Amino acid sequence: MTLNVTFIQIIDLVGTFAFAISGVRLAARKEFDLFGAFVVGFVTAVGGGTLRDLLLDVPPFWIQTKSYVLVTLLALLVTIAFKKWIVKFNYTFFIFDAIGLGLFTVVGLEKSLAVGNPMWVNIIMGCITGAAGGIFRDVLINEVPLIFRKDIYALACIIGGIVYWICYRIQAPIVLTQLIAAISVILTRVLAVHFNVCLPSLSPEPDPNSKSKE
Amino acid sequence: MTLNVTFIQIIDLVGTFAFAISGVRLAARKEFDLFGAFVVGFVTAVGGGTLRDLLLDVPPFWIQTKSYVLVTLLALLVTIAFKKWIVKFNYTFFIFDAIGLGLFTVVGLEKSLAVGNPMWVNIIMGCITGAAGGIFRDVLINEVPLIFRKDIYALACIIGGIVYWICYRIQAPIVLTQLIAAISVILTRVLAVHFNVCLPSLSPEPDPNSKSKE
Amino acid sequence: MTLNVTFIQIIDLVGTFAFAISGVRLAARKEFDLFGAFVVGFVTAVGGGTLRDLLLDVPPFWIQTKSYVLVTLLALLVTIAFKKWIVKFNYTFFIFDAIGLGLFTVVGLEKSLAVGNPMWVNIIMGCITGAAGGIFRDVLINEVPLIFRKDIYALACIIGGIVYWICYRIQAPIVLTQLIAAISVILTRVLAVHFNVCLPSLSPEPDPNSKSKE
Repeated sequence: MTLNVTFIQIIDLVGTFAFAISGVRLAARKEFDLFGAFVVGFVTAVGGGTLRDLLLDVPPFWIQTKSYVLVTLLALLVTIAFKKWIVKFNYTFFIFDAIGLGLFTVVGLEKSLAVGNPMWVNIIMGCITGAAGGIFRDVLINEVPLIFRKDIYALACIIGGIVYWICYRIQAPIVLTQLIAAISVILTRVLAVHFNVCLPSLSPEPDPNSKSKE
Repeated sequence: MTLNVTFIQIIDLVGTFAFAISGVRLAARKEFDLFGAFVVGFVTAVGGGTLRDLLLDVPPFWIQTKSYVLVTLLALLVTIAFKKWIVKFNYTFFIFDAIGLGLFTVVGLEKSLAVGNPMWVNIIMGCITGAAGGIFRDVLINEVPLIFRKDIYALACIIGGIVYWICYRIQAPIVLTQLIAAISVILTRVLAVHFNVCLPSLSPEPDPNSKSKE
Repeated sequence: MTLNVTFIQIIDLVGTFAFAISGVRLAARKEFDLFGAFVVGFVTAVGGGTLRDLLLDVPPFWIQTKSYVLVTLLALLVTIAFKKWIVKFNYTFFIFDAIGLGLFTVVGLEKSLAVGNPMWVNIIMGCITGAAGGIFRDVLINEVPLIFRKDIYALACIIGGIVYWICYRIQAPIVLTQLIAAISVILTRVLAVHFNVCLPSLSPEPDPNSKSKE
């Protein structure tokens, strides 16, 4: 990583905070207790990177530093303390979340690149890093994962990954590659929500008596 | 693997295709978008083998070749393009799925055997390879896993594994062992569905006030 | 491990049995078949330790010995055979379960300590070992995980872990450390249920139109 490390760490913690907030808030809607809300927040924040690290066979990133546990605790406290006002900061959290998504995608892609995987694997690993935490969150609160049905979310990670690939192929400077890829993720996500762009949905098959594989 | 490699690869892709189709179709019933349907199809197809590889501490098989991603994309396109007619091919998909189940079981068992595990572990790994993808699929679409309640599915993998074990103990030729084990899985699955054989279900305890561990 | 090995093994199997029983009974309420009930029982019993082993990058503990599979089978048989009377043993199972929780927490913590992790990671690993199996169980039966909403369960593992840490810091003899930590878990769990102590729950945000991250 050649960008200024402190800057990246701050972005990383901001993204973690936004992801954890989203987990804690959904847990609160299900009236989870303090511990349950913490777990859902933590899994939302670190779940994607953990799955990536298991698949890459490297140690889970969050055991190297207490920051991720502490930021999740902070997200829990903030959600409780500012419950009445938190809804007013929805747009702020949305932007933080998009920034986190951009960073996590690039970090995940590069971690896979570093162990020598081909670029299509790296793009998938970037996408898993950014999007799998939200899927785990929805599984834990027993809901159909939202990112499968609404908005452009994981696709933004894929687009950012492809942009990274192109920059990498034309041998753009690494810092520029990272920045452009992360910004692609963030812009895709923000513009898609702003202009209400969604992927087309599949529709059920016409025959309701159809029998599929079980 | 001593069977003709090309033949096995074709069977592998046919099985992957059938597994992915089953995931995409169930995602369509829940009106998932294109990306969600792709993810569910992919997880159905590669989830079992991925869990096995994580447990065996070997690299996930699907990062070695683009085939699994491409076959899942194909399954997505076929499901969308032929939505109105796909129900007519239910039996074809069922057979493909059973063939895939047989192959995946044998491949998974042998991968575990190759790292030196005892045979009872290999049988479980074969079963995980064949059946876990469908469990992940049902968790993602937020349904109770169908294989826990209907038909003989995972049990077919166990039976195939035991048949492999017997052939292995009597030192049958390896190709014959593989073929007989895979056919045992396929036949068990097909005959069970044909004759509507199910495992007995457990029933709830008589006292509805019973309190279990939480 | 310096406590008498046979004694620990017996406790381990008693805990495994109690965890598996809890899985099988909940599967029975959902009318799972024999195989489904076995899988849910097995995942409840070994799921936490398996996630810990994947995170620590060591082989899953349950492939070293057939005991865990056999104890789960026994739990399945006992649940079926004594269905009408099992509810009378709820308190016994609850105590077995608490004892298992205490042992699993200490075993998990020490396994993480042995690979050189810092103590806060070890405490989390102890908690995952004790509590994650129950979360997987509830995901498989498609329910919101009970430990997120009721009773003190995972928190008992955290408290036991902190007690272990304190004993470790003051260099108490290892056997004493293990015993005191395990008893802390068991007592916390039993007293919390006895006196009906729960963690406070979060409540939904006041504005139902609030939009969170998806």
